Amino acid sequence: MEEDTLVYRLSPGCDLSDVEEGNTYLGKVQGFATFGMFVQLNDRIKGLVHKTSMKAEHKEKDSVLVRVRQIRPNGNIDLEEQLIQVYQVQPVERKSTTVRIADLGTKQGKTVAIEGEVAQIKQTSGPTIFTIVDESGTQNVAAFVEAGVRAFPEVELNMIVKVIGEVMMRNNQLQIEADAVTALSDEEEKTVRARIETALDARAEPENIKPMVKSDVLDSLMPEMRKVAKIIRRAVFTAQPIILRHHADADGICSAVAIEQAVVSLIRESGGDFDADYYLFKRAPSKAPFYEIEDITRDLDFALKDHARFGQKMPLVILTDNGSTEEDEPSYKIASVYEIPFVVIDHHHPDATIDKYLVGHVNPYHVGGDFGVTAGMLGTEVARLINPRVEPLIRHLPAVAAVGDRSEAPERGHYLALVRDQYPEQACKDIALALDYEQFWLRFNDGREIVKDVLDLVGNHERHIKLVGLLVDGANAMIEDQMNACMPHVVPRVLKNEAKLFLIDVEIHAHKFTFPPPGKTSGEVHDRLCRQNEGKPVVTIGFGPDFAVLRSRGVHMNIPRMVRELHNEIPGGGISGGGHLVVGSIKFVEGMREPVLEALIAKIAEAPVQQ
Amino acid sequence: MEEDTLVYRLSPGCDLSDVEEGNTYLGKVQGFATFGMFVQLNDRIKGLVHKTSMKAEHKEKDSVLVRVRQIRPNGNIDLEEQLIQVYQVQPVERKSTTVRIADLGTKQGKTVAIEGEVAQIKQTSGPTIFTIVDESGTQNVAAFVEAGVRAFPEVELNMIVKVIGEVMMRNNQLQIEADAVTALSDEEEKTVRARIETALDARAEPENIKPMVKSDVLDSLMPEMRKVAKIIRRAVFTAQPIILRHHADADGICSAVAIEQAVVSLIRESGGDFDADYYLFKRAPSKAPFYEIEDITRDLDFALKDHARFGQKMPLVILTDNGSTEEDEPSYKIASVYEIPFVVIDHHHPDATIDKYLVGHVNPYHVGGDFGVTAGMLGTEVARLINPRVEPLIRHLPAVAAVGDRSEAPERGHYLALVRDQYPEQACKDIALALDYEQFWLRFNDGREIVKDVLDLVGNHERHIKLVGLLVDGANAMIEDQMNACMPHVVPRVLKNEAKLFLIDVEIHAHKFTFPPPGKTSGEVHDRLCRQNEGKPVVTIGFGPDFAVLRSRGVHMNIPRMVRELHNEIPGGGISGGGHLVVGSIKFVEGMREPVLEALIAKIAEAPVQQ
Amino acid sequence: MEEDTLVYRLSPGCDLSDVEEGNTYLGKVQGFATFGMFVQLNDRIKGLVHKTSMKAEHKEKDSVLVRVRQIRPNGNIDLEEQLIQVYQVQPVERKSTTVRIADLGTKQGKTVAIEGEVAQIKQTSGPTIFTIVDESGTQNVAAFVEAGVRAFPEVELNMIVKVIGEVMMRNNQLQIEADAVTALSDEEEKTVRARIETALDARAEPENIKPMVKSDVLDSLMPEMRKVAKIIRRAVFTAQPIILRHHADADGICSAVAIEQAVVSLIRESGGDFDADYYLFKRAPSKAPFYEIEDITRDLDFALKDHARFGQKMPLVILTDNGSTEEDEPSYKIASVYEIPFVVIDHHHPDATIDKYLVGHVNPYHVGGDFGVTAGMLGTEVARLINPRVEPLIRHLPAVAAVGDRSEAPERGHYLALVRDQYPEQACKDIALALDYEQFWLRFNDGREIVKDVLDLVGNHERHIKLVGLLVDGANAMIEDQMNACMPHVVPRVLKNEAKLFLIDVEIHAHKFTFPPPGKTSGEVHDRLCRQNEGKPVVTIGFGPDFAVLRSRGVHMNIPRMVRELHNEIPGGGISGGGHLVVGSIKFVEGMREPVLEALIAKIAEAPVQQ
Repeated sequence: MEEDTLVYRLSPGCDLSDVEEGNTYLGKVQGFATFGMFVQLNDRIKGLVHKTSMKAEHKEKDSVLVRVRQIRPNGNIDLEEQLIQVYQVQPVERKSTTVRIADLGTKQGKTVAIEGEVAQIKQTSGPTIFTIVDESGTQNVAAFVEAGVRAFPEVELNMIVKVIGEVMMRNNQLQIEADAVTALSDEEEKTVRARIETALDARAEPENIKPMVKSDVLDSLMPEMRKVAKIIRRAVFTAQPIILRHHADADGICSAVAIEQAVVSLIRESGGDFDADYYLFKRAPSKAPFYEIEDITRDLDFALKDHARFGQKMPLVILTDNGSTEEDEPSYKIASVYEIPFVVIDHHHPDATIDKYLVGHVNPYHVGGDFGVTAGMLGTEVARLINPRVEPLIRHLPAVAAVGDRSEAPERGHYLALVRDQYPEQACKDIALALDYEQFWLRFNDGREIVKDVLDLVGNHERHIKLVGLLVDGANAMIEDQMNACMPHVVPRVLKNEAKLFLIDVEIHAHKFTFPPPGKTSGEVHDRLCRQNEGKPVVTIGFGPDFAVLRSRGVHMNIPRMVRELHNEIPGGGISGGGHLVVGSIKFVEGMREPVLEALIAKIAEAPVQQ
Repeated sequence: MEEDTLVYRLSPGCDLSDVEEGNTYLGKVQGFATFGMFVQLNDRIKGLVHKTSMKAEHKEKDSVLVRVRQIRPNGNIDLEEQLIQVYQVQPVERKSTTVRIADLGTKQGKTVAIEGEVAQIKQTSGPTIFTIVDESGTQNVAAFVEAGVRAFPEVELNMIVKVIGEVMMRNNQLQIEADAVTALSDEEEKTVRARIETALDARAEPENIKPMVKSDVLDSLMPEMRKVAKIIRRAVFTAQPIILRHHADADGICSAVAIEQAVVSLIRESGGDFDADYYLFKRAPSKAPFYEIEDITRDLDFALKDHARFGQKMPLVILTDNGSTEEDEPSYKIASVYEIPFVVIDHHHPDATIDKYLVGHVNPYHVGGDFGVTAGMLGTEVARLINPRVEPLIRHLPAVAAVGDRSEAPERGHYLALVRDQYPEQACKDIALALDYEQFWLRFNDGREIVKDVLDLVGNHERHIKLVGLLVDGANAMIEDQMNACMPHVVPRVLKNEAKLFLIDVEIHAHKFTFPPPGKTSGEVHDRLCRQNEGKPVVTIGFGPDFAVLRSRGVHMNIPRMVRELHNEIPGGGISGGGHLVVGSIKFVEGMREPVLEALIAKIAEAPVQQ
Repeated sequence: MEEDTLVYRLSPGCDLSDVEEGNTYLGKVQGFATFGMFVQLNDRIKGLVHKTSMKAEHKEKDSVLVRVRQIRPNGNIDLEEQLIQVYQVQPVERKSTTVRIADLGTKQGKTVAIEGEVAQIKQTSGPTIFTIVDESGTQNVAAFVEAGVRAFPEVELNMIVKVIGEVMMRNNQLQIEADAVTALSDEEEKTVRARIETALDARAEPENIKPMVKSDVLDSLMPEMRKVAKIIRRAVFTAQPIILRHHADADGICSAVAIEQAVVSLIRESGGDFDADYYLFKRAPSKAPFYEIEDITRDLDFALKDHARFGQKMPLVILTDNGSTEEDEPSYKIASVYEIPFVVIDHHHPDATIDKYLVGHVNPYHVGGDFGVTAGMLGTEVARLINPRVEPLIRHLPAVAAVGDRSEAPERGHYLALVRDQYPEQACKDIALALDYEQFWLRFNDGREIVKDVLDLVGNHERHIKLVGLLVDGANAMIEDQMNACMPHVVPRVLKNEAKLFLIDVEIHAHKFTFPPPGKTSGEVHDRLCRQNEGKPVVTIGFGPDFAVLRSRGVHMNIPRMVRELHNEIPGGGISGGGHLVVGSIKFVEGMREPVLEALIAKIAEAPVQQ
């Protein structure tokens, strides 16, 4: 018995490479010309049946059988019509195998298939843009039906899809122009999703390295640091924007810049848009020493707008040298409404209440350490886990952070020893002062490139030396100037616990709105007074209309408790504030300054002193 | 007698579809190759006369007669030269008919003709970009002669032109690449312009709908609201930028956001750039309770720069919950120099002097109503007229505005009743407080997406509930904190009219630069004092170094008159201010605070009280 | 003896125009098709050897000899294989001759060669972008090997290279798509570099023109003005960004706007990106009357980011009506680390110490003139040298600057006479006041387009008149209002030198944060008091909590010396300040105001008076 003739039907995803000369295909009449008729084999492949090869009368959209006589070098297909009564149709599937997104760079001009999760769908006035994520990267796919009309409307966010299309260069970026975007079957979806998750998980896993220095605290923190590094690496690999907020002092800057170096270089290594390290990563110094409502409001405002306008994911927020106390809670609450993940790298005494808002939290107090293991040390260690290749660049940052934050932990010495040859202690102190001074003038801009020079991350050591020298000179001259204005107005008292108390009104006896600001001014005054009163217990209060800054040496105060007591004892004082044993601040309403300060001094006079 | 042979000449706009095989055309020699000579039939169509079909010697630019032997499928044309002595030339016009701009989406890859007004001409370093507006939309047209050289220099702004060109997709936007941009003859121009105007006018006409609630005031305002809605719709249809300025309180935000929803969705529905709702529409809360010089200066600075740099039209400015008083006049004057049109939707008592600056003004006082019909109610009704499809989204905004502004008009109840099922009165109050609190932290950013969540416009009701709950908790905690600081410092007096007067110095007895700000702080103090003095006339003055805020209950003051009198009675007081019967504020120079406050109190003591 | 057959080898840069029919080439087998084999003649040119013309078996990458039978009109090349035993290979060089960058506009679609210096190399995720500068302009060149991979890695910054490629239009800008970017040989490099330098130098040379008015001072300054103009012209021609900082008063604005007009029009005339005048030129009013650390910090932050992100050059900074005193030195020091060139155009008394930081400095004191030759005069003269074509536009700016700065130099009269017909003295005064008032509301934005209208540079004289009229009315109304608040609080004294001293506390007896600000308020008070005390020596001190402003008439004070003395005599006063004979200011810490003011007054009482 004779077999039915075999006739092929090209699937939508097929391209020219799936067509074979000599085979017969089921096609559809697309249109007519004087010299013949055009027949589509699928939506993207058509050929010409010359009038001499036509066998019957047809109208548009008629189904016809055609044999491929020749595929010309320019891609034109010569067809001839076939009249066959009995035949069997066999679908032709796309021969293409799936390509990893990371490998698309070499496929320009080729038709490929990729599989991945739909991470974003943006309708433009032209095509619909799908962003696809697989285990190796992220890729934009343009699909066009009609200007402004949603292509493949059945495809939804978070689906696992297969995309077939041609790899093109558009505006200096790789783009796939899709022939087909199709959801995978349930089973396929499960397989692919698992494959992607497993691969992403493995890819995000940090390398197995030890801290740069000997430290029980750091050793104990390693698991949490690895966890945090993994979260950050995964954000980079899945094109999630990252916002890095930090305390605007030398320690906070060192911590944040170390992570910045690691993240930015990882983004670059991971491909994607060449400009991605600018719009997917933002470092922002915070004005307050905590993540205040104004910060989250601004971050959320921008994130939601980017989400609405550009289809970006909601960001991962990293807080360093900040974020571990109750004061941050109002902001976390607001962020939790939008399920924004937070990781915190801090060395302030953590309040247990805030951990429920965090997906990761590196803090020395969790493992028996204290603030002497500074945020700059922690941030640098995390940065190495994020991207070990940046270590040579950033290994001196912990030492700078240590002297900047006056750490007295053993880690200070270890980190200083590590870089002693290139950055002796005085160099680190200079860099720390230069950072504070430069950040003052930057206000709350990140100053990305200048700060890199201050920290010697640019590879121009000579310029770094020159810049730091100038900034240190400038800072010291302004400090000297401020001290000349301040010191003659310091009012001394001796308290009944024999502590020496010094009062300075930094509102009326210091230059305002310039460097050094009130807190640093009070600190400089205190340092001078300590030197003048070698060996004696000293407390300095720098106050303005509605605030006071405390510095102490040899007086055992519990500033947070004192503030709580004052808050309760003085109704209408509007008192708040905090700090720790030697440094603190207190706020009050202007009209209650006198009674508040006197009550505060009375409490200080009760504190035990170190003789 | 034999007729002359007919020879065709292709007009510049003609394309391949206008060429017919077998016909003879008048062409021009373009150049030579070894295998023949190229002949242009017009600027964009050329064919090849193979050397075997050449009949004479030629040089470049010679006119020749050629017969079209064949048009190949790839568009190549085979010509043969004709030698004819006597012939008659007949021009071939472009067969294309005019397409409406709104219909271009389906014409990609096709050559089309459009007619419309030239709304913008921008020279780039490449082509010249003409923006054409017809009754259905706006379209960019690129015309290229030479890099950086103005194409079609005879075409000027505001001309009515016909454009022939191919519809392309460029950077994800439709663009016409023009073959020809030609001014229409006077008569045609008149016809087309009339057609466009009539069509635009009809298109801009709002639907015939009634207010959402029963209200004589709203019914009477309907004609002006329709007029304003039509002006705004027309701005959208003609790609005129819109700046929407509003009072930064709950009522102002509701009013402005209702209009924002209507305008943004109308822009999207009207096609154009997919990003147009961002650069053609800007909502900006005002710092002052009026449109101050700093606002117009900034708006004008940006508008003029956009005009110079991107060729944008000057904007339409909409003011809501603002704009109807003398205080706005200096800004209107400056704007009038640039003929910027203004519409105002306000419920403050209007000063007659300002209407000459406005093209539309919705105000309840114009029809016998008062401020109880709030800006949020008016804005929402206007928004429905702009785009009725947004009504389901925004119908609860008037109720939020009503409770936020403490309206006591009957409309308050009607609007609350309308949405009672989904938003009972307490929910509306919470939303209003959440808006005030969130706007405080947004400073004067619009917070477009967050505000949409606060107002439940995103379709995520659960998230809305959670967000509002958190914001209300935060706001109340901070109000409580402020009251704890303030209330112990309130100084009471009894005036001779038996009104109870309370004085609170909000500069020295309240937290500054935080929520609640001085005005709201004074209001909260007043509310508490009213509750403590149920049934008695109460006036509260919250004052700072150079301002005082007044709140009163049961005391019939005319604050604007009091301010005017004080201004005249106290030379060197620098007094200004205003308000209405129960709420007001007054400014003065710091050094004159005591005499000004005492004189003010003396006047209050003269006011009749409600016993 | 028979000669060897000649066989050609195409160099990489060759294109189709270098291939000749009939010649035999050395090629390489690229691939096979059913109908024959493709052979590459170089990387970009390939042809087909039909199977009937193949002479031997081959595999991919085999070398073969092929004769060009025909080049078809569409660029396809028909080849036939040649079997030749003995032949001689002759390389074919690209025939193209070098094109000047300025001439590329007419070469679209053509393959060209350009020579120049590599001014920038930017790697994108697609091609590598080289920016090439020759004597005539700047051109972007895109070179592509593989997505994200650096093309021509041997080419480095500042090399002199030859680029061969096709001129394309990309995103409305000319771009060369490079076939080859090759470093020139040492000798060629020397020649080309010298040619470019010489040509640039000649091109940057200003025209030989005289000052607009008769003035010995201006004549003497001409060489330095020419030098400065040349530096600025050269910056424009080499795509170096320019930052123009200026004092935010009428004189400073006139000076800066004159230069802005010249530079912007020169940028436009010089081609380049059509938007280049926005991103290569920035004018920014300074808050302080000098270039303060905050300014350089911000400028440097942006410049370094633009350098890192977009590969822009470090900027040329121009300071006008600013920059010549010690107060600017800290900023210059920081800038010097980055080798940022500065030019200063100022009429303040220069401190000799700063010239080492400047590449050019126009200052009347250098040639025996004084501040009466204002920055607006100098800036306008320099602007004419930068671009003489703007002279008709800006020739009235010196007159506006002269009256704005109350110049009493003879040049004042000459410049006023020059424009008397169109801008009589009162018109100039009005414009100057309008500038001050508008700049106040612009805060420290440049307000580019509004300011052009205030200065009548737009060509809409009627609008200018209307705008200036309104601004003058507004300014005068606010000045009147301020005077009503202030004048009643002026405290008079008679000093022992018989000078009349007037004291006004502008903090508590004037409106704050509005127009006129404290300095101008003090000036207006002084003017009124001078009129009331015709012929008598008058000193007015307007003071706030930590500052005082001095104005004097007929009293010979040396304010800088007085400030230096006070600084030394009052420890803890925190005193600084400066000025000249009749105008000055002094800062101190708030708590020392009384002793500082009294000591200042004592010094004033010692000054000789003019009776």
